[in-house]
Amino acid sequence: MINASLAGLIEEARQHRQISRFYGAPFGLDGVLREEFLDLFAQSPATLEGIAAMPSSALGTSRLEAGPAEMEHVLEVFRKHDVRYLFYTGGNGSMGTALQMVEAARDRGYELCVIGVPKTIDNDLAETDHTPGYPTTARFFASAVRDIGADNRALPGQVEIVEVLGRNAGWLVAATSLARHRPDDAPHLIYLPEVPLPLETLLADIDRVYHRLGRCVVAVCEGQLDEHGEPFGADVREGSRGKLAMNLGHRLAMLAAQHLKLKTRSEKPGLLGRSSWGDQPAADRAESRLCGRAAVRAACEGVSGSMVTLVREPGLPYAVSTGLAPLERVAFIERLFPEAWRAPSGHDVLPEFQQYAAPLVGPLRHYELLA
Amino acid sequence: MINASLAGLIEEARQHRQISRFYGAPFGLDGVLREEFLDLFAQSPATLEGIAAMPSSALGTSRLEAGPAEMEHVLEVFRKHDVRYLFYTGGNGSMGTALQMVEAARDRGYELCVIGVPKTIDNDLAETDHTPGYPTTARFFASAVRDIGADNRALPGQVEIVEVLGRNAGWLVAATSLARHRPDDAPHLIYLPEVPLPLETLLADIDRVYHRLGRCVVAVCEGQLDEHGEPFGADVREGSRGKLAMNLGHRLAMLAAQHLKLKTRSEKPGLLGRSSWGDQPAADRAESRLCGRAAVRAACEGVSGSMVTLVREPGLPYAVSTGLAPLERVAFIERLFPEAWRAPSGHDVLPEFQQYAAPLVGPLRHYELLA
Repeated sequence: MINASLAGLIEEARQHRQISRFYGAPFGLDGVLREEFLDLFAQSPATLEGIAAMPSSALGTSRLEAGPAEMEHVLEVFRKHDVRYLFYTGGNGSMGTALQMVEAARDRGYELCVIGVPKTIDNDLAETDHTPGYPTTARFFASAVRDIGADNRALPGQVEIVEVLGRNAGWLVAATSLARHRPDDAPHLIYLPEVPLPLETLLADIDRVYHRLGRCVVAVCEGQLDEHGEPFGADVREGSRGKLAMNLGHRLAMLAAQHLKLKTRSEKPGLLGRSSWGDQPAADRAESRLCGRAAVRAACEGVSGSMVTLVREPGLPYAVSTGLAPLERVAFIERLFPEAWRAPSGHDVLPEFQQYAAPLVGPLRHYELLA
Repeated sequence: MINASLAGLIEEARQHRQISRFYGAPFGLDGVLREEFLDLFAQSPATLEGIAAMPSSALGTSRLEAGPAEMEHVLEVFRKHDVRYLFYTGGNGSMGTALQMVEAARDRGYELCVIGVPKTIDNDLAETDHTPGYPTTARFFASAVRDIGADNRALPGQVEIVEVLGRNAGWLVAATSLARHRPDDAPHLIYLPEVPLPLETLLADIDRVYHRLGRCVVAVCEGQLDEHGEPFGADVREGSRGKLAMNLGHRLAMLAAQHLKLKTRSEKPGLLGRSSWGDQPAADRAESRLCGRAAVRAACEGVSGSMVTLVREPGLPYAVSTGLAPLERVAFIERLFPEAWRAPSGHDVLPEFQQYAAPLVGPLRHYELLA
């Protein structure tokens, strides 16, 4: 959805005389530091429309964590090219960088307007009803669990662990609950990474489902930890945002096979969840574009140091408008899956969450059964 | 596509007076042994059309390997219910069971007509141009590698191992070559399980690509073995069709990280590849239905002991008709990826394969790049 926001930014920027040139920085700050810029006003309408529909990021992205030296360098580049508006797209880490940029420019007396444009599949950004990108990835994983559930129903006698993106936040794994249509549909078990999961609980849960249905599909977040705060002995990689298990689903499948003597397997759609060019909810694309446009309008009205938010209208049918929140209230703040929407066990979700998520994800087709 | 074949079987069976009742065995032979049958003529047209479009198997399937005792039992059940036509859907293992059924019935003087209906995503069935199910799963993995490739381009500095279904046959991993549009598009490396892959070759290949592009996407078949005939130290499960690595992609990612000191990750879409309710090539669905109809017609014309095949018309545009092949020529025979279509290194594919596969998979949308 970052491409749809980009398209929104460009189409709105064209409407404003004070924006004479509009550049994209390939690979984010990396591009700025290399003084590489793409002339966004020079892109053909066909290219822009093509890109607006695409997943991934046409501009590219970066995991660079900018320190004071990089900030200084970035401001030098901006000064040299007379860059006065900065639109910074991403999640709470990116909003943190945007805020640091505001502060660095202010400290140096450089007039720079900074607007944050929200985009993260993880939905873990504060102050906004949801983040662009979340509905599409939520739909991907709900559909994936539905499909793996149909496979598990057709060839039972197996436990399936489906690993879902989301790092420390349960928003995506929670959305797999939308795959449930019949009482015995997958996912039979959902675990939220906000709540530690003792291995014994997991094994007892799987055993119970398997003995009832003869099959079991488990949706687990890649960031799930056990009661010792460890990822069940999975291999771990050090990323820019901390440690992350690389093979949690497989590890849990091995543990279940070993302890329960059941046939198990695991699937890890992984990055496909954020990059599939498949089944995007139209609303997600439209809202991303809306956020891009709102960012440019806010900048041209003199706002700076804020992030665009999505504000849900009360009641149904589902409708949103955009708002603004100070960067201070979103920077580096991780909005976890709310306790109020967790089932009493701490695992699984309450219907209130499904009411929140269903209009974002849109209706899923469900499988017919022979009578 | 097994559901589309089922729909074809039912709609054709309705046209033939000699078929008075038409039953489906839930979970294949398991259902027969339990004497559980579904009345297929009693299904509503809406249910049938719904099912025809669905992935997975509405009837369910089984991994039962029937020995002489089961065969005897199955024939008893058939005799009791006066079952005279058997349509058996699946790959080379299922065709083997179908052939055993022909022989068991003949030995006991029970008149039974058996027709095989081809369906396997692996495409490893002899005598047919391709198998129903292969085009859809080939398209899934080609799209998946395209999408992960776009992600890898947007956030470079990483090696991506994508694990592809296919067991011992390279047909599906070969199809990921259709994701290539620009010279630097993913997959940068493809390995065919027909050819042993020394770890040193893999590491040298990745290193070369990474140093040229700053990123690398590898498509590897779940059944890939090293030069010792081992799956690189991956965990292995014993299935009904032999040993299979459970985490090959992850294992290769770990080895590449360790030896090359590069950032790596792996994705395992796994069963999603065969069960996604997404982007099915319309031709695959139509051909599956065609196979179902042809099976019933052959049976009603007195054929038995044969499997329906897909026969490609010479030249373009792409067109197929159906044929028949004796079960003896397909039973338990694994059609591997042909040597004539492998690149001289043994890894990667030649354009002749792409000419074969492109009309099956259909055109893929490609990603725009900013100018």
